[in-house]
Amino acid sequence: MEKVCFGIDIGGTAVKAGLFNTKGTLLNNWDFTTRKTGNGKDILKDVVDFINGKMKELKIEQDDVLGIGIGIPGPVRDNGDVLELANLGMGYFNIEEEMKSLTSLKVKAGNDANVAALGEYWMGGGKGYRNMVLATLGTGVGGGIVLNGTLLAGSNGAGGEIGHIFVNEEESSTCGCGKRGCLEQYASATGIVRVAKRVLDVTDEYSSMRSYGDLSAKAVFDCAKAGDKLALEAVEKACYYLGVAMAHIAQVIDPEVFVIGGGVSKAGEIITETTKKYYNEHVMPALKNKEFKLATLGNDAGIYGAAKLILA
Amino acid sequence: MEKVCFGIDIGGTAVKAGLFNTKGTLLNNWDFTTRKTGNGKDILKDVVDFINGKMKELKIEQDDVLGIGIGIPGPVRDNGDVLELANLGMGYFNIEEEMKSLTSLKVKAGNDANVAALGEYWMGGGKGYRNMVLATLGTGVGGGIVLNGTLLAGSNGAGGEIGHIFVNEEESSTCGCGKRGCLEQYASATGIVRVAKRVLDVTDEYSSMRSYGDLSAKAVFDCAKAGDKLALEAVEKACYYLGVAMAHIAQVIDPEVFVIGGGVSKAGEIITETTKKYYNEHVMPALKNKEFKLATLGNDAGIYGAAKLILA
Repeated sequence: MEKVCFGIDIGGTAVKAGLFNTKGTLLNNWDFTTRKTGNGKDILKDVVDFINGKMKELKIEQDDVLGIGIGIPGPVRDNGDVLELANLGMGYFNIEEEMKSLTSLKVKAGNDANVAALGEYWMGGGKGYRNMVLATLGTGVGGGIVLNGTLLAGSNGAGGEIGHIFVNEEESSTCGCGKRGCLEQYASATGIVRVAKRVLDVTDEYSSMRSYGDLSAKAVFDCAKAGDKLALEAVEKACYYLGVAMAHIAQVIDPEVFVIGGGVSKAGEIITETTKKYYNEHVMPALKNKEFKLATLGNDAGIYGAAKLILA
Repeated sequence: MEKVCFGIDIGGTAVKAGLFNTKGTLLNNWDFTTRKTGNGKDILKDVVDFINGKMKELKIEQDDVLGIGIGIPGPVRDNGDVLELANLGMGYFNIEEEMKSLTSLKVKAGNDANVAALGEYWMGGGKGYRNMVLATLGTGVGGGIVLNGTLLAGSNGAGGEIGHIFVNEEESSTCGCGKRGCLEQYASATGIVRVAKRVLDVTDEYSSMRSYGDLSAKAVFDCAKAGDKLALEAVEKACYYLGVAMAHIAQVIDPEVFVIGGGVSKAGEIITETTKKYYNEHVMPALKNKEFKLATLGNDAGIYGAAKLILA
């Protein structure tokens, strides 16, 4: 039978699982609820049980499985060490060794945002490039960096933590990380709403955004696309900070392409175009006019990237 | 005979050359004047003639030379392509192929700041670490990044161009690169003097810095170390920007150590300590308290790193 591998994306509420062949074709995918008991190890047992069940059901031999790639929502060292993950109830342990002892299969783990970047690099918006940055604009802002085809994990798994790049000296509110003025405070879904509310608060000017009882990032972009002046101002502000952060990244690693993903990226080219404008204003000439693209794999980026950890 | 290699550092005024054994011991070193004629190729001929002469003089057989590593003051792609280097009168060509055809030896080239980083990583302030950032504070601010023991060149050789990280929205003067608010405008030798003059200009307060006809970065640091209030203010400002830029770098690549080199770093621990303070204020908790060290190889970092390009 053809060789296959599993790509697993462990999230705070659900686990996504994908079965891939070596060409990167997604043969099948599933999801199930994340169990947060047992110091984080119950979820690993669930993953193993699930994989064993699917192997039996689909008549996949152990010898045909090249391995299991896993993305988890926290820092992972290159050797598989997971630091404490409070939101999954996980303590400190080595996820690769733990899973390997349960399955006798090759196991490779990475941070979920980094793994998603590897997925977009392999089969998504970054396909065809060797050096790529993924910015995931969702509830927070995550990121992942691929250099010469390899994930940049960093010395403690915190490489690509671009959501906490400091971009605003004037900020008075505190970010979830404890600092002030992080990119995430402006370019996440909640960040964009925050920026828009600040724009609305300082004026009595008409804006279609005022008709929303519960303003969302999507609403801000919809209003901006319809020409609403204050919504456009909010989008410009959020993309200014995103462009500045990407300029910082480029001065450090000189990538070929920036890929923008996450729920917020559904707004489309208004984000890539506006961000690119401010990016170009803040990099040295040799770094201007990099490619800016939208992610294409959506919520499947994680399982693709997890599989690629094994197929790399 | 023991195997050796040459490390060459081509600068705007002088070429430095070192002969190394495989353990990284500097056996001999020399320098000669940079010739800027012939579209940059005359200097390569000079280097080759010099190496041939030294091989003859020291009775080194061709078979015992593992290769020639070269650092040049401009962007170099991973394949050896050199883009135009106006200050050396160089056009576009492949330096590795050119040198190889002249010597029949293995040749590997890199950007001088990156190569210096590799030198400090190998035998200097970054020895013992796998992930290192070198910030070179000289006439300008250069940088180089080593990740997992390998130089980060970037997609067009502009990786580690940290001197042009944007750090100040309020700046009115233009940097050499054409932008405003680059790190180099505050943390280079001239940048520090500029910061100090701005501090002096807005007050009539006494400062020992006022007694210098031609204020230098060294003088600013000397006055600061002697307790001069305005000099200390200038040092805090310069190191604030350096700390912020290093925070940006850490959020992108999560290194283990920052090494500070270049002429300005002779001021010593006042720089590393002050920079580290502002660094810690601007990174997420997981990235706090990285190591900050002074470079130790001085002007020899380039020849060490060039040799390491061959021995890697």
